[in-house]
Amino acid sequence: MTHGDMLWADSAPSRQIDSELLLRCIEACFDCAQACAECADACLSDPAVADLTECIRSDLDCADMCEATGRLLSRFTGDDTNLTRAFLDTCAAACRTCAAACEQHASTHAQCTACAEACRRCEETCEALLAALG
Amino acid sequence: MTHGDMLWADSAPSRQIDSELLLRCIEACFDCAQACAECADACLSDPAVADLTECIRSDLDCADMCEATGRLLSRFTGDDTNLTRAFLDTCAAACRTCAAACEQHASTHAQCTACAEACRRCEETCEALLAALG
Amino acid sequence: MTHGDMLWADSAPSRQIDSELLLRCIEACFDCAQACAECADACLSDPAVADLTECIRSDLDCADMCEATGRLLSRFTGDDTNLTRAFLDTCAAACRTCAAACEQHASTHAQCTACAEACRRCEETCEALLAALG
Amino acid sequence: MTHGDMLWADSAPSRQIDSELLLRCIEACFDCAQACAECADACLSDPAVADLTECIRSDLDCADMCEATGRLLSRFTGDDTNLTRAFLDTCAAACRTCAAACEQHASTHAQCTACAEACRRCEETCEALLAALG
Repeated sequence: MTHGDMLWADSAPSRQIDSELLLRCIEACFDCAQACAECADACLSDPAVADLTECIRSDLDCADMCEATGRLLSRFTGDDTNLTRAFLDTCAAACRTCAAACEQHASTHAQCTACAEACRRCEETCEALLAALG
Repeated sequence: MTHGDMLWADSAPSRQIDSELLLRCIEACFDCAQACAECADACLSDPAVADLTECIRSDLDCADMCEATGRLLSRFTGDDTNLTRAFLDTCAAACRTCAAACEQHASTHAQCTACAEACRRCEETCEALLAALG
Repeated sequence: MTHGDMLWADSAPSRQIDSELLLRCIEACFDCAQACAECADACLSDPAVADLTECIRSDLDCADMCEATGRLLSRFTGDDTNLTRAFLDTCAAACRTCAAACEQHASTHAQCTACAEACRRCEETCEALLAALG
Repeated sequence: MTHGDMLWADSAPSRQIDSELLLRCIEACFDCAQACAECADACLSDPAVADLTECIRSDLDCADMCEATGRLLSRFTGDDTNLTRAFLDTCAAACRTCAAACEQHASTHAQCTACAEACRRCEETCEALLAALG
């Protein structure tokens, strides 16, 4: 039984959304949290750390919001769509902010390239789930 | 040196908001996370646990969002007011949802009374900080 | 650039451990945290929730420890092997406890089968990394 | 009803430990997590950030472990003393490591003084609870 099956097993008639998209969003959130944690640490190890502090803060904000959202989505039963929407909106905003901070350094700091990609993927998946929630 | 002093020490000219209110909001977030964790567990120990599952889920959602917000506010330097506002909005929504779920059982489940109070306090403090951010 | 490359980029001469094993352990931790969150929620939705409360608590303990360990390992620079070892030991213990709780219900609750597998994988990976740290 | 009462309400005959000490330990964990988050951020804002990266990493490790432990203790029903002991041991180790890192800079960095104090308080409370668990 996969994670996706678990989400299906848990599904209630009230939930109309695509279970595969939900699962993709949960994974994008946890992947992004991990990429942000690693980017923050690579920035801390960088000789130019003093120029990367905005990036580190964005990483930590984004990691925290992605984990909170990934956890909420793992509990999603379709009963409180408004709250889910609020989490997804804020998560997309955190991803957008972090991606923008990382993209400024992407040409010279490889960790920021990888992190910006994970953030953009998570932002898009959150937006797609928001659209599906209607 | 207190936590409040640490936040002052860290303050930049760009941050116009009341440091005392910021600190109060950080503490309300961590208090609420703790109350939600304890309420979820007391509900799990309750013989009527089957009637309290919505309450437990709201507790876990709210605890996760309060921790994420408390951590973000601990890093707040005034540089990204929009993102801070999004966290505070979502945190207030999570507190409101959890308080409403707990209030339904408050007359018969003491843990829900205490948790609803912590949620309402945190919701109000988030709203007050939102108002101060303008 | 992948997460693994990021960890290599960050590597210091003092770190002798296998970067591929480290990355595998980080991923096992985040996967296990996700499986535990989903199992806890599926148990909450189960009509027999009153018989599954020990399982739910183990899920929550294990999810919290796996996230803390996944984050620590994402910051691992080889400088404090003792602390890393303590996290890995405790994480393996949390996984073992949760797997044992889930295995009791695995024949009748599919979410517990999937979660027990993720816990055993994470436990083994933590043990392998502990062995590699010497 | 206070948090302490909630813990009492939840108490089972199998739990012999002092509820007041348990509550004190939960609060020390959440306080320490908050102090570490603030110290990490003050260090990031420090012009000498490049000299403070070990301190920032210890702060993040310690904050993560203190939150995981605070949450576990909020769910403590006395049923798995071994796992609780493992969390407390690792939490005390994380606090000790972070306090030692902060104490090196305490004379010149006020945030480190406050954080080291919170870490030492949390370490001592974890040790006291460990002793009480026998």
